[in-house]
Amino acid sequence: MALIVQKFGGTSVGTPEKIQRVAEKIAQFSAAGDDVVVVVSAMSGETNRLLALAKEITTKPIAREMDVMVATGEQVTIALLAMALNRIGVPAVSFTGAQVPILTDSEHGKARILSINESSVRAQLQAGKVVVVAGFQGVDEKGDITTLGRGGSDTTAVALAAALRADECHIYTDVDGVYTTDPRVVPQAQRLERITFEEMLEMASLGSKILQLRSVEFAGKYNVPLRVLHSFQEGPGTLITTDDEDSMEQPIISGIAFNRDEAKLTIRGVPDRPGVAFKILGPISAANIDIDMIVQNVAQDNTTDFTFTVGNLDYDKALEILQATAKDIGAGEVAGTTSIAKVSIVGVGMRSHPGVASSMFEALAKENINIQMISTSEIKVSVVVEEKYVELAVRALHTAFGLDASRKV
Amino acid sequence: MALIVQKFGGTSVGTPEKIQRVAEKIAQFSAAGDDVVVVVSAMSGETNRLLALAKEITTKPIAREMDVMVATGEQVTIALLAMALNRIGVPAVSFTGAQVPILTDSEHGKARILSINESSVRAQLQAGKVVVVAGFQGVDEKGDITTLGRGGSDTTAVALAAALRADECHIYTDVDGVYTTDPRVVPQAQRLERITFEEMLEMASLGSKILQLRSVEFAGKYNVPLRVLHSFQEGPGTLITTDDEDSMEQPIISGIAFNRDEAKLTIRGVPDRPGVAFKILGPISAANIDIDMIVQNVAQDNTTDFTFTVGNLDYDKALEILQATAKDIGAGEVAGTTSIAKVSIVGVGMRSHPGVASSMFEALAKENINIQMISTSEIKVSVVVEEKYVELAVRALHTAFGLDASRKV
Repeated sequence: MALIVQKFGGTSVGTPEKIQRVAEKIAQFSAAGDDVVVVVSAMSGETNRLLALAKEITTKPIAREMDVMVATGEQVTIALLAMALNRIGVPAVSFTGAQVPILTDSEHGKARILSINESSVRAQLQAGKVVVVAGFQGVDEKGDITTLGRGGSDTTAVALAAALRADECHIYTDVDGVYTTDPRVVPQAQRLERITFEEMLEMASLGSKILQLRSVEFAGKYNVPLRVLHSFQEGPGTLITTDDEDSMEQPIISGIAFNRDEAKLTIRGVPDRPGVAFKILGPISAANIDIDMIVQNVAQDNTTDFTFTVGNLDYDKALEILQATAKDIGAGEVAGTTSIAKVSIVGVGMRSHPGVASSMFEALAKENINIQMISTSEIKVSVVVEEKYVELAVRALHTAFGLDASRKV
Repeated sequence: MALIVQKFGGTSVGTPEKIQRVAEKIAQFSAAGDDVVVVVSAMSGETNRLLALAKEITTKPIAREMDVMVATGEQVTIALLAMALNRIGVPAVSFTGAQVPILTDSEHGKARILSINESSVRAQLQAGKVVVVAGFQGVDEKGDITTLGRGGSDTTAVALAAALRADECHIYTDVDGVYTTDPRVVPQAQRLERITFEEMLEMASLGSKILQLRSVEFAGKYNVPLRVLHSFQEGPGTLITTDDEDSMEQPIISGIAFNRDEAKLTIRGVPDRPGVAFKILGPISAANIDIDMIVQNVAQDNTTDFTFTVGNLDYDKALEILQATAKDIGAGEVAGTTSIAKVSIVGVGMRSHPGVASSMFEALAKENINIQMISTSEIKVSVVVEEKYVELAVRALHTAFGLDASRKV
């Protein structure tokens, strides 16, 4: 008998009929003797319907009142799901965020969870009930309703699992797990039985479509095993957990991530002086543009080339800023392109396996793919290549690191 | 400077545009220096939309969860109205029933208010804010959300006004006040400046379309002056208050009420024995049929005729029960008809003016209207007449008691 927290998103509870199906899935766990806490989002479309109402009133709504309004979305879902569970003979009771209570700070619309008093939830579990909790919302110490911002239901589920010391936190989605890479690019992509929190975070470009990164960080911090599952299909999904050092068959590489939505900017002939990196990147950051990879070559003739990547949408703005900077600091030509892609290999196994990066470069070289930039972390190697090579690169690496074959972890 | 509680129903806040207009009305009072607490219902249609969702899940929803769901209707309105007020420069803050808190018993769907802790509302008023409270809902001592049942927003407003010792409680509606009778029947009907709680209760057949009777009772009990006003028109409305003994110009009759939705049943030849009334009416009440007027004539030949009225919708059921009872007790013929109407004259003035009933009978006799039943209370005389005479009777009485003329109270 385990204690499981299960989270169903807006699409999974988008209609009364889907809520019935979710209730039946929960009933299976309850029948197996598990204690179940369920976290749900607003029915899909509901939050947007509410935002549209507010927009008819004002374009600058008071944040406190937005939260009062938007929090009703999940409140409707918890009531409907509790009804659906009771209808099929599973005793269930609903809790709003304030009723749990999930205490947050007072940053309306993007509040952070401060603490959870789990005693009322635990009392209902002990009384044999499934507890249905509204995701995405909490209450501050003044008693005001807060929301955690969009996608915050994952965070609610992980925080509740941590507070309750749950055995697992299930995140139900529209995919049946985390894959070695995007199956649309590599049909041989495998569902991973298991992946570490760190790997999941590094696989952001794949993972962010499945899980909110903030909830993965949170789960890692509190060591809550996360399982990604399909809402309406059977299957074990993918378990996201801590690095299991004992695992003999740990693969070197867990997955191949890629991102087409980056652009590259280069400023040449930069005087090689202390503080020059800040002079270049400071104005970019000041314009709220996120910088991803940064590469600076060793100087020649007292000048250096400086290259970095930003999101595609920020490219024009960043280029403009950089051209102004080039004049300021007496640098040379500014160049850039959006026709690039980043490809990354991710795996905790590379910590103990030197030479992973060169295997990567070898595989790309075999396909005559030129590498434009390289960046490494402890468990990731990323390269920037011309955008047209992205599929070829991902497939070559997927094969080279043995991910095509079926494997067990 | 007064403290006013204002209540706007679902139709008055049915669209964002109407919510803006309500905000502008509230702003007038706020600008005049009044402290304002506003109670609002769910936007019209919203409660039915939610009930339809629940119906898709189950026909026997858990009452606790229904309240969790239905309470979101008002929660959306309070947020939107607070936004609308802030937008036009009127500082405002919203409260759910639980946030006030409005403590109720645990009878979900028809909870009764036990107490209101008004200190947080008062603190916000003192901070210069308009306080917008969700009507129709509260919280029980377990922290569960409760609802007061349909129409409960009036009760919320009156209860808040009592707790805050407000100067007046304004109920905004789609009429501009309480009339001496239905203006569709008597075009000369006058808006009353003032009416007593008792009269308002006796005028149920008119008043129930405007105000929830329960809230009038409540207002009378706690002596909260109620004012009925039009949501979107200017005007003083009608003040419902305690009997003002000092008023010299108190009219004898304040209004003429009528009800077409009653049916009459008669059982003849009832043996004149103690307990026979209970034998006749007991089975009717046991079938959850409300009995209105009851008339029993003095016995002749040791038998008596026994007549009572019920709602039209219960007529067939009541007739069936009565026929069975007649056999049981050895009574005679059972007769009945739905072609009747009840016409009542209402006024606290009749306490000090004997002869009002005979003036009524005289007015009806002049029009050749036969009276079938008579029933009196301290401030009301009701008669049952053939249904086809109802308009004629109401018009005749309206004229006879001087209500056609314009008057001041």
